[in-house]
Amino acid sequence: MRGAAYTGNGTLETVTVDRVPPGDGEVQIRVAFCGLCGTDIHIVHGDMDARVTTPLVFGHEMSGTIAELGGGVEGWKLGDPVTVMPLLWDNSCPACQAGHQHICQNLTFVGVDSPGALQEYWNVPASLLVALPAGLDLRAAALVEPTAVAVHDVRRSELAVGDHAVVLGGGPIGVLIATVARHAGAHVMVAEVDPGRRARIAELGFEVVDPSQDDVTALVETWTGGVGADVVFEVSGAAAAVRLATTLPKVRGTIVVVAIHSAPRELDLQRMFWRELRLLGARVYRREDMERAVRLVADGTIPADFLITGTVPLEDTGRAIEDLTGGRAMKILVDVGAEVVR
Amino acid sequence: MRGAAYTGNGTLETVTVDRVPPGDGEVQIRVAFCGLCGTDIHIVHGDMDARVTTPLVFGHEMSGTIAELGGGVEGWKLGDPVTVMPLLWDNSCPACQAGHQHICQNLTFVGVDSPGALQEYWNVPASLLVALPAGLDLRAAALVEPTAVAVHDVRRSELAVGDHAVVLGGGPIGVLIATVARHAGAHVMVAEVDPGRRARIAELGFEVVDPSQDDVTALVETWTGGVGADVVFEVSGAAAAVRLATTLPKVRGTIVVVAIHSAPRELDLQRMFWRELRLLGARVYRREDMERAVRLVADGTIPADFLITGTVPLEDTGRAIEDLTGGRAMKILVDVGAEVVR
Repeated sequence: MRGAAYTGNGTLETVTVDRVPPGDGEVQIRVAFCGLCGTDIHIVHGDMDARVTTPLVFGHEMSGTIAELGGGVEGWKLGDPVTVMPLLWDNSCPACQAGHQHICQNLTFVGVDSPGALQEYWNVPASLLVALPAGLDLRAAALVEPTAVAVHDVRRSELAVGDHAVVLGGGPIGVLIATVARHAGAHVMVAEVDPGRRARIAELGFEVVDPSQDDVTALVETWTGGVGADVVFEVSGAAAAVRLATTLPKVRGTIVVVAIHSAPRELDLQRMFWRELRLLGARVYRREDMERAVRLVADGTIPADFLITGTVPLEDTGRAIEDLTGGRAMKILVDVGAEVVR
Repeated sequence: MRGAAYTGNGTLETVTVDRVPPGDGEVQIRVAFCGLCGTDIHIVHGDMDARVTTPLVFGHEMSGTIAELGGGVEGWKLGDPVTVMPLLWDNSCPACQAGHQHICQNLTFVGVDSPGALQEYWNVPASLLVALPAGLDLRAAALVEPTAVAVHDVRRSELAVGDHAVVLGGGPIGVLIATVARHAGAHVMVAEVDPGRRARIAELGFEVVDPSQDDVTALVETWTGGVGADVVFEVSGAAAAVRLATTLPKVRGTIVVVAIHSAPRELDLQRMFWRELRLLGARVYRREDMERAVRLVADGTIPADFLITGTVPLEDTGRAIEDLTGGRAMKILVDVGAEVVR
């Protein structure tokens, strides 16, 4: 069967992968769609060569149907629509012992540290399955995993009804956080430098500002009646956004660091002190976040048509990565396309 | 009467101050002792010239007895031993409206933004008084205000019995935080570069490490059985300590920023994200912190003899500031010394 693999040296190739039966406790999923995210781009660019083993079939934002059940698997049947929560924890490290399995100190991120979904049939432990409702469009369902990131980030922020939230960065995760925050009852402003993205985000009904031109601090001050934002989500990964972030929250307000910052960033600790601010790291999600994400995708809260700006066949995964790198797309799905069971 | 005043241009002078009767709602305190802190040093060095009005009689870590009651003051009598919570809030700003009066957006810090305790008789609003138990040594009582800082910092950290806390910086506030944290049931390690301070802090029974020589990250890892610290208090104000701080907490651990960082600091946001860490600013205290501090000083939990390394007459306030600047003392008290009512 076909797969898309990172083969090292910044190279992506369409490869032939052996289809093997699922082992005990595993299921085999016939993959329908797999979205590409920032982590996938980093893999293909070689930024994660120290971590990944090549050739690596990557991909983890997926949807599909169960094609085969391994030994001992109960509660699932062939044809069930599913997505996967791609986290494997060891249940023994201090983080797991403290109940934080999702950020296990020895976490295996499936699709990064082990084979992922960019292949026609994918074997995963049945414990990772997340059920999808019958009839849910499997394209939209490929957004469940990134939506779970947003659900987790908003939950961690303790955002409340009526709060004012500022999202720094209007890429897919930024828009998902904005959407989940608004659904939770918050007023939401998105700061995004790209004018095309800004215009489209405004069409979704969000306040938008341009951090490269606007005085965002003053605008947030006015927008919140002089109080300041309850929560700021840093989703951009930019050093300038970190400098901006501390100027926006109210006294005792919260900044959530969602983006990956590859270098240390200058942070105004004096402002953190002066306003008794709180800065929280937030990473991946827990099962309840995945399950809530399924509901938000299924009920149409998540603007799937807005986010999914393209769908390509498996063979064009490399081109899709290029388009994403160039900022010419929001979310591109790979149609993994096992149209007939082979 | 005599006072010590910052008169501008980095100059401290002993001045003559008019003794005026307390106004309505005020009391006049006969000041016994007044400790000198980092803020006082900054004032005298001219670092706060943009904020203060000169001549400024400063000082806010004080003890004394009530010498005179202004009109309408009830619940107090002459001779009552007291300290002062030197915060005046406006009760109308968004922070006050949200219940965070102690960090009012228009806070008046008494002794910085208005006259302080380095004068023989000091008029303050009766609402700022904090009662001291009869018989409490007024030297030790001058430690109540900085102890309240430590109580507030520990409370904000949500430190629990059995937790491991690392205090970065072994000056007076660092030692007070260590003491309050240990009293709350935590295991405490203090990182301090000065060998003399380190030796004396070890005598108090704390674990000590030298961040300029030791691999503090590895030591904390071992000390906590591989888990990491529950709470890290950044009290040093040093850029290196901020870099160190993110390496120490457990997954979902907390860093409390207590020190004033005059410049933005490089922070490892990747580590904040990876371990879902929490960074909290903590500033001054609330009335309950002052009242708890009184009890901790009164019951001997606070090592007053350790912390108070000198007492000087009012006329020697300048020399005391020099000694503190040079790191030749922990806490110096000014004996304001109204030995007889003048």
